[in-house]
Amino acid sequence: MSTSERVPGEARPGGRTARNRDAVCRATLLELANHGYAALTVERVAERAGVHKTTVYRRWGGVDGLIVDALQFAVDDDWQPWLGGAVEDNLLELARVALRSFTDPETGPTHTAVVAAAFQSDEAINAVHDFFADRFGRSSRIITVATERGELPAGTDPLSVIRAVMAPIYFRLFISRESVSDDDIQQAVQAALAAARAGVFVMESISGE
Amino acid sequence: MSTSERVPGEARPGGRTARNRDAVCRATLLELANHGYAALTVERVAERAGVHKTTVYRRWGGVDGLIVDALQFAVDDDWQPWLGGAVEDNLLELARVALRSFTDPETGPTHTAVVAAAFQSDEAINAVHDFFADRFGRSSRIITVATERGELPAGTDPLSVIRAVMAPIYFRLFISRESVSDDDIQQAVQAALAAARAGVFVMESISGE
Repeated sequence: MSTSERVPGEARPGGRTARNRDAVCRATLLELANHGYAALTVERVAERAGVHKTTVYRRWGGVDGLIVDALQFAVDDDWQPWLGGAVEDNLLELARVALRSFTDPETGPTHTAVVAAAFQSDEAINAVHDFFADRFGRSSRIITVATERGELPAGTDPLSVIRAVMAPIYFRLFISRESVSDDDIQQAVQAALAAARAGVFVMESISGE
Repeated sequence: MSTSERVPGEARPGGRTARNRDAVCRATLLELANHGYAALTVERVAERAGVHKTTVYRRWGGVDGLIVDALQFAVDDDWQPWLGGAVEDNLLELARVALRSFTDPETGPTHTAVVAAAFQSDEAINAVHDFFADRFGRSSRIITVATERGELPAGTDPLSVIRAVMAPIYFRLFISRESVSDDDIQQAVQAALAAARAGVFVMESISGE
């Protein structure tokens, strides 16, 4: 189809497609936040987004496709970790931001619903996996910078340190269902850094090479 | 009611009650494992248990009551952590047993379904919380013994060490959805012990006293 066939005033396909994606992804995240995975339907998302449900079925396939794209949509941003302090300060800030994203009344329900969806859908598992790989990959910069500055041993695996900081917080939130205080965050950061300084996360240390 | 009123051959109330609980809790765990929380109904549990559904409603109230009691039922056992080695060996064994309980085809689906149920039910949250408090409480003996033997600093908080060992494993399994290798388990144990030896988990170290 050439551009001359376009009716004047009609939205360019790319423009409408992008707007539809924006509306559908936002609607999916809101539906997840308000009603959870179990109640998520193409019909509800389509209605909230103001898009015909056949459009949603054609482009996203169904509920699982919606979750995957909504999470991708949420990740498509410019977020970078704060690097303004010593490694301990930067990790504390990282952990506090992560905790807030789950406890904040605005963003918490959606983020929690996405973690929950992975218990019920293989597609959501992949989406959540990719989300954490992306976020932890970006967060690794904190450790790379610290290693370059000599704050941590050469060869420290950045992802292992980030995971060590975050795991106790997520564990309390979503597994053991305990409250998370700022003392808990400080302990998680101190524990990860003590292990890192002891060389536990130096890449060769585990395999014994 | 005196015993003389009992019809000969009729099960003693305590006996039937106990058998019913056993059947209903086992049925609940199996239903959770096979179909998940979202599909759990009193009718399905009653049918699988061979108990009338009005009995289930009367005694357990509904689905959430079933989950709470089934988890309590599963916890009512004689499990104790292995204490036969040095602290590192005992923690490795603890972590391997925990991982197996989630990856084993027999027990894994039920255990996973219980963690998942907490995303959908406040009663399940409380039940899961109590489950981990019980298991981690028993596991703390590993750390208490190690501290008494001088393997860890005096005043080390046992629960903090156990949580530090287990959190990265649960995090990979249920949050970031990464595979868990035995190297990962070894790293988690080494990291928790390095932090413990550095005094991070000594009870006063966080509050700065």
